[in-house]
Amino acid sequence: MQSLSANAQAVGEVLNELLISGDAPEHRLIDAMRYTTLGDGKRVRPFLVTASAALFNVAQRSGLRAAAAIEMVHCYSLVHDDLPAMDDDDLRRGLPTCHIKFDEATAILAGDALLTKAFEVLAAQDTHADPQVRADLVLALARAAGDAGMVGGQMLDLVAEGMELDVPEITRLQRMKTGELIVISCEAGAILGKASADERHNLQHYAYDIGLAFQIADDLLDVEGKEEQVGKKTGKDAEAGKATFVSFLGVERAREQATMLSEQAIEHLDVFGDKAEPLRNLAHFIVNRSS
Amino acid sequence: MQSLSANAQAVGEVLNELLISGDAPEHRLIDAMRYTTLGDGKRVRPFLVTASAALFNVAQRSGLRAAAAIEMVHCYSLVHDDLPAMDDDDLRRGLPTCHIKFDEATAILAGDALLTKAFEVLAAQDTHADPQVRADLVLALARAAGDAGMVGGQMLDLVAEGMELDVPEITRLQRMKTGELIVISCEAGAILGKASADERHNLQHYAYDIGLAFQIADDLLDVEGKEEQVGKKTGKDAEAGKATFVSFLGVERAREQATMLSEQAIEHLDVFGDKAEPLRNLAHFIVNRSS
Repeated sequence: MQSLSANAQAVGEVLNELLISGDAPEHRLIDAMRYTTLGDGKRVRPFLVTASAALFNVAQRSGLRAAAAIEMVHCYSLVHDDLPAMDDDDLRRGLPTCHIKFDEATAILAGDALLTKAFEVLAAQDTHADPQVRADLVLALARAAGDAGMVGGQMLDLVAEGMELDVPEITRLQRMKTGELIVISCEAGAILGKASADERHNLQHYAYDIGLAFQIADDLLDVEGKEEQVGKKTGKDAEAGKATFVSFLGVERAREQATMLSEQAIEHLDVFGDKAEPLRNLAHFIVNRSS
Repeated sequence: MQSLSANAQAVGEVLNELLISGDAPEHRLIDAMRYTTLGDGKRVRPFLVTASAALFNVAQRSGLRAAAAIEMVHCYSLVHDDLPAMDDDDLRRGLPTCHIKFDEATAILAGDALLTKAFEVLAAQDTHADPQVRADLVLALARAAGDAGMVGGQMLDLVAEGMELDVPEITRLQRMKTGELIVISCEAGAILGKASADERHNLQHYAYDIGLAFQIADDLLDVEGKEEQVGKKTGKDAEAGKATFVSFLGVERAREQATMLSEQAIEHLDVFGDKAEPLRNLAHFIVNRSS
């Protein structure tokens, strides 16, 4: 998807500007933050931010800074998730994970610093002239990423090991663990653009649907994907005896479900007309990707 | 110090309100966040926030919420600092550290969630009606706690192991690792109270001086304090061969230096008159405490 990679590059440039490694003895920290964020990710969340912001003619710089902040939060969550005490992963996007490349202490601190930096970026005047917008961005991201959102979802994922989750419980887990950050990515565009309640509502629904579709596609890749293509270890869920959408529905019905969610997501974009074409393309891309 | 313990209790009540443990399966996360923040800490930073806010007649509720947010950041940093990959401490304030009481994964996530919650609290309307104030609080805390402040200081502390630091280098390390959070504690009061640049400047200088005095007092306690009184392992710095103010200056000169800094800090408060009495008392307390 061409617009996805163009946006990924633009966000990468902003991240590169925001994370300057100097010659202070602690530069190892910034090096680890850069290693974690400046790789070849798809940058789906940043794309959602800028594509949503574009619906409301938000200045490009504002969208890119908010996108960079949310990408920092996503990347920090991966770094901490990969730690030995958590998922204990050595490989991410085909490269050594942060604690393998550096060390565990550095990975913990780099994650902490990325999370902190995200809020610094959102709260800075350069992101938007209106302080109400900046405070709203911070509040929405903190809620999405915290104990009632992403981190809560990670905790739930850990305590659910060995529990028999049903589909509503798996849905809740995924909504917290990965869905909320996808929703705030779209909401950030709406906040920056001072969207109406109705517009924001539609974007939220779009985001929830593609978030779930994205997760099902991820589960399918874990079952069917090749390690070298996906860029991380596959077959992990089955190995861990983890209940996923695919283990419940089977491959075929899971694929149908993802496609149905993608189409449902697109319907929520009707109100935005042609301007929402990039978001429609993304909804298709998400369920058809191979990595 | 009576006003210190009264304030600690008031901040504890706000923290208790902000961290509600429900019956969702992931309640373990909130339990760990509560365990980490609701103990018997001195709560020096929250005291600095509310005492600074009181100089400008800030509403009590605003001061207490900002104080709770900064305490969350302090507590998260202790939880991550105590992890096996970092300082590997089993005891904190006389109790098992978070990863001992719960487990490592929960401690990592509880730290992450506390850091995130701090920004959620600061950005919420309930903290201050003016969004500019809320955005400024977030920005100042993120700068103090991030790669150029506290987390950068922790990284520096790790890479400095085995290096021969001189006094200016130790001063820089401590200013980053512990000083910046003490400064933002005083600044938060100034931001909430829309203080003049001159008033803010004086509070910053006061904070830098007591921050350094606090650290020297800490180093002295590590050398001279009894474990059961200090509530954590003592003699650690010497054991680790760590360069501290005390190892450079010796006990007597270090104590003189701390007293000098405390007196110098108090001079910066002249502009505030009698209202600054609680901050003066704290400056004395810091260098005379036994735990």
